[in-house]
Amino acid sequence: MNEIWDTEQYDVGIVGAGLAGLTAARELTGAGLDVVVLEARDRVGGRTIGGSLSTGDTIDRGAEWIGAEHDRVLELVEEFDLELCEQYGSGLDRVAVTGDVFDHGDRFQALPSESATELREAADRIESLRDGVPRETPHEVPDADAWDATTLESWKRETMETEVARQTFDAFVRAEFTVEPSEISLLYFLTAVNAAGGLEMASDSVSATQEYRLAGSTHQLSRGLAAELGDVVRLGEPVRRIDRRGDGVTLETDDGTYAVSNAVVAIPQPLVGNIDHEPPLPARRRGLGQRMPMGSVVKCIAAYEEPFWRSDGYSGSVLAADGVVSEVADGTLPNGDSGLLVAFIAGADALEWSDRPVSERRERVLAELERYVGPKAADPLEYVDEPWSTTRWSTGGYNAVMTPGTLTSCGAVLREPVDGVYWAGSETALEGRGFMEGAIRSGERVAVEIRE
Amino acid sequence: MNEIWDTEQYDVGIVGAGLAGLTAARELTGAGLDVVVLEARDRVGGRTIGGSLSTGDTIDRGAEWIGAEHDRVLELVEEFDLELCEQYGSGLDRVAVTGDVFDHGDRFQALPSESATELREAADRIESLRDGVPRETPHEVPDADAWDATTLESWKRETMETEVARQTFDAFVRAEFTVEPSEISLLYFLTAVNAAGGLEMASDSVSATQEYRLAGSTHQLSRGLAAELGDVVRLGEPVRRIDRRGDGVTLETDDGTYAVSNAVVAIPQPLVGNIDHEPPLPARRRGLGQRMPMGSVVKCIAAYEEPFWRSDGYSGSVLAADGVVSEVADGTLPNGDSGLLVAFIAGADALEWSDRPVSERRERVLAELERYVGPKAADPLEYVDEPWSTTRWSTGGYNAVMTPGTLTSCGAVLREPVDGVYWAGSETALEGRGFMEGAIRSGERVAVEIRE
Repeated sequence: MNEIWDTEQYDVGIVGAGLAGLTAARELTGAGLDVVVLEARDRVGGRTIGGSLSTGDTIDRGAEWIGAEHDRVLELVEEFDLELCEQYGSGLDRVAVTGDVFDHGDRFQALPSESATELREAADRIESLRDGVPRETPHEVPDADAWDATTLESWKRETMETEVARQTFDAFVRAEFTVEPSEISLLYFLTAVNAAGGLEMASDSVSATQEYRLAGSTHQLSRGLAAELGDVVRLGEPVRRIDRRGDGVTLETDDGTYAVSNAVVAIPQPLVGNIDHEPPLPARRRGLGQRMPMGSVVKCIAAYEEPFWRSDGYSGSVLAADGVVSEVADGTLPNGDSGLLVAFIAGADALEWSDRPVSERRERVLAELERYVGPKAADPLEYVDEPWSTTRWSTGGYNAVMTPGTLTSCGAVLREPVDGVYWAGSETALEGRGFMEGAIRSGERVAVEIRE
Repeated sequence: MNEIWDTEQYDVGIVGAGLAGLTAARELTGAGLDVVVLEARDRVGGRTIGGSLSTGDTIDRGAEWIGAEHDRVLELVEEFDLELCEQYGSGLDRVAVTGDVFDHGDRFQALPSESATELREAADRIESLRDGVPRETPHEVPDADAWDATTLESWKRETMETEVARQTFDAFVRAEFTVEPSEISLLYFLTAVNAAGGLEMASDSVSATQEYRLAGSTHQLSRGLAAELGDVVRLGEPVRRIDRRGDGVTLETDDGTYAVSNAVVAIPQPLVGNIDHEPPLPARRRGLGQRMPMGSVVKCIAAYEEPFWRSDGYSGSVLAADGVVSEVADGTLPNGDSGLLVAFIAGADALEWSDRPVSERRERVLAELERYVGPKAADPLEYVDEPWSTTRWSTGGYNAVMTPGTLTSCGAVLREPVDGVYWAGSETALEGRGFMEGAIRSGERVAVEIRE
């Protein structure tokens, strides 16, 4: 136990130096408060992290795409003078379901017409249902109990009958939320679609939130914020204990004790319970941590001499449900050194394939890419992947979700402060949830809450 | 970091001194192995814990009832020469649903006949479905995907139409599994019923697994085992880190480092992820920990001068769905000093009511008891309760459950050793799951696995 003379004093202690924690720190230091950010890893950025290939390309091993309406991210891009690149969008998208590969145009027009109609009607139905779900208090919608007790899978089976439509829907859910439709409720799904800002499936393009990327990795956003904050950010200091028994809050790491007036917890929800909380967190808060698993995803990147699929008429965008890859996108940068395909294994397949050797994943992913864009895909210059489920301090990606029955029993406390402890992170966001935008907005929100 | 000369060497290191961990320790020391048990709390027994009332009665704040087929528990009772008491079973059981209180005989005969028929048919249907679910590999049943994607709530709504039947079913599920029917899948429910040894709702009595209790608390079982083990058990040493990178396994606590050939993790599943695992656990193992929330329960005990309900013709057994209490039982011991009613708040109500002051819970619980057994219930000699969801090192009760979609994606690894680390605890049991019996059997199982 540290004695009082070892204790450092701050106005605010922030747990986690991802985009949420760093944004909160920036806002609060900007308001004149004395802040410390305690980060478990030896780097900032959480689920944003760059990497480099032998080809010379800089890649994103984590969060990559930026939507046109992601104002906060775009402001940072401008502020830090980063190079924004438009996502390649020419050529045919493809949809691989039930053993067939369809060329995909606007709103499923290439699919068999009965399935396309089912998907359009399902998308319309989702749009109409989500309109009635209040953004801040989704658990108060009149049908909340019934919708939260119905898995999205049950709803899908009721709503769509053709296997093509069902599998296409699965692919959308896995690609956007990295979970199986069996793992979340209809109510949580509608809430998450609202918080994400819409459903890709309901839009005219497969890439509504994938308009832009950054040359040089999105990790530059966190690094830019951290550079500005300087020694406010302490790396390699996982917070082990949060003690709320005194006047303020005490944060303990292996290296020190920090007495703060308020704390911000800006880490993935499933990790909140890994910290010793004294006194124990309220039951619903604790229950929430046990009922919000991380989504599961392996991000796979294959580098080729050039983006050969473009000249073959393909966009590189694929949505798939009959293999292990759920989604593929063209990851080539305009001034990049090679052509990149980015493939995602998501949901239950990601859990299973994270446990296999990378050589097996490589073989399987390349075989599937070959199916989608031709034989040249089988022989990349380089293949790398990032299995987020076994990544310490994240334990999954993109985001935590709520299991059925959770939103109605515990959802009301998601953003509710507990004795001076505030909650940030992308999954707490009302806008941009599941994206970097949501993380930034959640950091802004807690900063406002604390200043008020 | 401890240097090598601070490291103690053992054949087996066991994390957790509940009935599972203590049983494993007994079996393994009995086989001549050198064992250490590391317990976070300053006591053994996990979710068994005694207490005493001002009336002089010894009570169980945790696990209490013993089934007639709980062989392992009954063997320990005999070995330790403890006093086994038969559960009081005379008089009328009651069922409180939809605002009415029914007197309850065999298999719902007192309920409105349409509802009673629905419940009997539902119970028969469950019995027939669970017969086809393999005990060790439930995820391999032909309908596994569909059943794991259907919440028990959805199944209930399809199967039963009357509100009386539905609410009675809710009460059974909450009372037996301490979760809402919306929180688990049909497949997990069938699996859990198989592992528990049957469904109370399908038996002729409301108390099929509640035949016996112990005079002087079930905590005597753990204390007996611990006394025999002596200094094998270390209290107040939460394991912070499990390192599997060397030849064996290294367990680290705040006080020491233990190098062992094999480790047993015998703690609730949601707490497994609170330990730093190096390297990270396999994705499905980690995923399981994030997808197995603890059930939620507040155990409430009210003491009266005598068990007055008996002379009024009531058994004290109540199943209820229209209040916050789900189940009531007569907790009076034959040679006890007072009459005891034991009431359980379970499922979502338990999460909500755990966050309220005990005075509010007392008022509400007593008002509900009054409704069931008359005005004398309103004025006990003493009232105590134990909100398990906010209890550190348990974080809920009776048991962890799997959320929808989890059994099919991650269930296969529940008992699968990882690099010399074995998994015990009641929720891993194939028999007696959710009871002390299951904890003991899981401890026996890992001992056999390690010796083989």
